[in-house]
Amino acid sequence: MKKNVIVGQSGGPTAVINCSLAGVYATSLELGLGKVYGMRNGIQGLLERRYVNMCDHIRDDFDVELLKRTPSSFLGSCRYKLPHPDQNKAIFAKIFGILDELDIGYFFYNGGNDSMDTIHKLSTYGERVNSPIRFLGVPKTIDNDLAVTDHSPGFGSAAKYVATTTKELILDAQVYNNGAVTIIEAMGRNTGWLTASAALAKGPDSIGPDLIYLPEVAFDMDKFLDNVAKVSRDHSPVIVVSEGIKLADGRYISELGRENIGSDSFGHIQLTGTASYLAQQVRNKLGAKVRAIEFATIQRCASHLQSAVDAAEAFAVGQAAVQAAAKGETNRVIIINRLSSRPYAFETCAMEIEKMANIEKHVPTEWITPSGDYVTQDYIDYALPLIQGEVAPFFVNGMPRHILLK
Amino acid sequence: MKKNVIVGQSGGPTAVINCSLAGVYATSLELGLGKVYGMRNGIQGLLERRYVNMCDHIRDDFDVELLKRTPSSFLGSCRYKLPHPDQNKAIFAKIFGILDELDIGYFFYNGGNDSMDTIHKLSTYGERVNSPIRFLGVPKTIDNDLAVTDHSPGFGSAAKYVATTTKELILDAQVYNNGAVTIIEAMGRNTGWLTASAALAKGPDSIGPDLIYLPEVAFDMDKFLDNVAKVSRDHSPVIVVSEGIKLADGRYISELGRENIGSDSFGHIQLTGTASYLAQQVRNKLGAKVRAIEFATIQRCASHLQSAVDAAEAFAVGQAAVQAAAKGETNRVIIINRLSSRPYAFETCAMEIEKMANIEKHVPTEWITPSGDYVTQDYIDYALPLIQGEVAPFFVNGMPRHILLK
Repeated sequence: MKKNVIVGQSGGPTAVINCSLAGVYATSLELGLGKVYGMRNGIQGLLERRYVNMCDHIRDDFDVELLKRTPSSFLGSCRYKLPHPDQNKAIFAKIFGILDELDIGYFFYNGGNDSMDTIHKLSTYGERVNSPIRFLGVPKTIDNDLAVTDHSPGFGSAAKYVATTTKELILDAQVYNNGAVTIIEAMGRNTGWLTASAALAKGPDSIGPDLIYLPEVAFDMDKFLDNVAKVSRDHSPVIVVSEGIKLADGRYISELGRENIGSDSFGHIQLTGTASYLAQQVRNKLGAKVRAIEFATIQRCASHLQSAVDAAEAFAVGQAAVQAAAKGETNRVIIINRLSSRPYAFETCAMEIEKMANIEKHVPTEWITPSGDYVTQDYIDYALPLIQGEVAPFFVNGMPRHILLK
Repeated sequence: MKKNVIVGQSGGPTAVINCSLAGVYATSLELGLGKVYGMRNGIQGLLERRYVNMCDHIRDDFDVELLKRTPSSFLGSCRYKLPHPDQNKAIFAKIFGILDELDIGYFFYNGGNDSMDTIHKLSTYGERVNSPIRFLGVPKTIDNDLAVTDHSPGFGSAAKYVATTTKELILDAQVYNNGAVTIIEAMGRNTGWLTASAALAKGPDSIGPDLIYLPEVAFDMDKFLDNVAKVSRDHSPVIVVSEGIKLADGRYISELGRENIGSDSFGHIQLTGTASYLAQQVRNKLGAKVRAIEFATIQRCASHLQSAVDAAEAFAVGQAAVQAAAKGETNRVIIINRLSSRPYAFETCAMEIEKMANIEKHVPTEWITPSGDYVTQDYIDYALPLIQGEVAPFFVNGMPRHILLK
């Protein structure tokens, strides 16, 4: 009798996070593993014994295709930080008790850095107690800040959204020929990967954004205002900034204008209002007409604009995790190795999770222009293959159809 | 020798405004009219003798298809209010002088209420001076506030964007199961047509937004907070509001939190921050976690998500305007008559422009629920046909390809 499978989703969703869930589910069935359980709201839900039998909800291949096109985390998510096994054995004993009750042999957790930390802690504890359960991490993040892997599933689709919408907004901004300034804020707390993707808008049919500011470079307000004045001379500029840009002294721009709204259970400060604050500065100091636009959570849930490459890779990492676990691997995360950029080719690989957990990958300094306000061709060459191809939503009555966990 | 044609775009762009331009251009060529000129930045550019010969820019059928898929106003726009002919004859003499120089016989202006006012004034003056020029209005507005016509081109695509993105955000909002409140702000200064389209998200695969507030109903802050508390009990609610909602005493919600940023040359107050202000109220009064999301100008330029019905109708009104003008009609606007909702069928008709100019069409009170916080099935039946069908962008290198006026 084959052991059962359990899979959970954690952290912020992406436009293709359910492609990875589909990859885990479909591959588990294909390999003839046992039942496939889904944790509701990740490890937090598991601790409350909230889980579903996936086959009650995803009944056939059509449902799998709907699942791949459904935004947000189908199973729900959490931001729950496991303690170190030395600090609180009880919680691990509880988790492993529940996993044993369910006769789990394979545990998959789809998330970012914090989720890889969870997998690492569970594997470590499992090894100590001689558990046969295989623990595998499946990467996802729109931020693309995971180490070791060439890039992370979820990034390509978010980048396609940011680039496409920025391109549309650049045309929109030119309409009145009045030199008005548009400041767009994209997600990116500590890394500028996603914000930088606005540069992909540039091409034979678009002037692209005028300036791009990433958290990797200390933000200089005077230089910024000078630059804005310069690019406003002959057109209506569009400037794209990361939510997490900071002054040289470490203060977030978003902190300057208002109090912090709070922080989550990982101690992440919730940032908001970077573009609004900069817009206010431009208005007051330059007297320009300014509009601030935040992509907010739209950029992580725009499944109607999935990148086909990203969707396929998100499925592939789920698939590879099941294959690796079935071969007996554990305490590993599936990463993507780029074999070639032109033509684009990749392979997946099961890597020791310590190499990824709790490390943040930044945009290389040499991919940012010396002036600190744009990215180089190296970034474009890196990101362009990841936004290729489209996945047609299943439109019903004019609206993309999704599948809901009832 | 056939007389020449001139066409201009005015007011805020829509995702399909260039479909109407394509309709005017292609039909003028088809009917063998003379040269087709495009005003740069509408009547304002014309006064500065800024115009182009369209055939230098749109060279073949492929370019026409690209034009139809290009967001924002290809020719640029303006917000320029013509005086009454009695008040300032000089400006009319100047415009007619330029039109005569260019040997114009047909004048098309694509815009909203203010543009229809422009056409009306030009026609009136033209009649007085016995000008042979035919003046035709081509309607467009995402706000759908034009009178007489069943609906306006541009509304359907904006509604498809608002409904689709709201649907994606509703799923995204549920992810942490923490009762957090999302408040979305859609455009709509005085009318709630577009905001109401968020209701189209509701269906077998979506709970839809929880509450919808339109400017047609006086906004009651206490009732709002009570409602938010109620809908937050068992899930993470999504609330959609028009930028222009007002208290019973006439004050805009957006005015309560901050100073007005300014007003445009038509005296329209620029509204912003309605959702932010409400989010702050919910945070302070209910202690809830809240996120404010503004669709901003994204909702009017998301050409990657055009409604096929809307795109076809936008083309059709441009086409009909040329046909009417060629038959000798003037001082008219093309409107859309709905012949049937199921199956959806429409016809275009050239209507006296006085019936449309300077009148604002509101969402009928009986299409808003008695509680004032949702729309009825009548609204759904009205709006649903208008978001049907998709227009595939021409994707090149993973990005929608547009055409630029160089």
